Amino acid sequence: MNLSDQIKFCSSCGSTVAVAIPQGDNRPRHVCNQCGTIHYQNPKVVAGCIPVWKDKVLLCKRAIEPRRGYWTLPAGFMENSETLEQGAIRETWEEACAKPVNPSLYAIYSLPRINQIYVMFRADIRSSDDFGIGEESLEVKLFTQDEIPWENMAFKVISLTLARYFKEYRTGKFNFVNDIID
Amino acid sequence: MNLSDQIKFCSSCGSTVAVAIPQGDNRPRHVCNQCGTIHYQNPKVVAGCIPVWKDKVLLCKRAIEPRRGYWTLPAGFMENSETLEQGAIRETWEEACAKPVNPSLYAIYSLPRINQIYVMFRADIRSSDDFGIGEESLEVKLFTQDEIPWENMAFKVISLTLARYFKEYRTGKFNFVNDIID
Repeated sequence: MNLSDQIKFCSSCGSTVAVAIPQGDNRPRHVCNQCGTIHYQNPKVVAGCIPVWKDKVLLCKRAIEPRRGYWTLPAGFMENSETLEQGAIRETWEEACAKPVNPSLYAIYSLPRINQIYVMFRADIRSSDDFGIGEESLEVKLFTQDEIPWENMAFKVISLTLARYFKEYRTGKFNFVNDIID
Repeated sequence: MNLSDQIKFCSSCGSTVAVAIPQGDNRPRHVCNQCGTIHYQNPKVVAGCIPVWKDKVLLCKRAIEPRRGYWTLPAGFMENSETLEQGAIRETWEEACAKPVNPSLYAIYSLPRINQIYVMFRADIRSSDDFGIGEESLEVKLFTQDEIPWENMAFKVISLTLARYFKEYRTGKFNFVNDIID
């Protein structure tokens, strides 16, 4: 998925667009037939959090598609005007009504097939009841490693992040990773 | 700059858009007056490289705006379907005709004022003449720390990355950093 087929009109002037390789470029873009504006498409950043309480982490059951009814860590598209950390904390508030502290960058994953970059932080929730059910969640709950619903996780990137987290939790040492999820 | 004023028409149906807070959302978006499509805007990822040869790094003098004529590290907007690392290597090829090896993630910077995330790698060029002048560059050259044109650098994020690189180069130990540039 290099080029979305959802761009049919120019957002600057409203005319139709064509797919063409602009001069000096080397890949196809949506180019306006009228004003020539090039409409670039780029990967989006998803910022998220592993909210930690003692030997447990906080998961959300998704109330929205995709993957409604499946479990995930709080994470979502980064907004303009915020930092990565602010994005991760905001998403944790929106989805799990938690305001975790001490965020620490834990993992960055490139997901080239779906044009996303995941940026995950570890952070501590402030008490065992410092959370609630956000608008985009059906249920929000603390899980030990053994309790994690591994068969009902929403996304592979989240399962991998959690598996790595618990493996490192047992060793007491966390290592930042930059990896690719194909 | 939360909301660009460059979105005037719906890219799906060509109708005009209004700025409104969609239901269930908490911030203004461009929403199509006709088909209701919400046009989200999100930060873009800039992937770049510190191409290293012994005690020198490779800089490019920009041939394009912004900051034409000023020096920078090879870096640019990440493309769909690539990983962070591939983006950094591609930009190094496009701007400096170099194909560096052994890329290692070095720094991530949030730039919330301009809605960008910079992701910088260290990598080794393969010989002292393994580079050339890419299409977007006026000049490409190796610099020792003392030779760096500190007064003529294109972007603060690049100056900071280089300053940190040379400071750590002297110690022989490089540390990954996640930071904010305001």
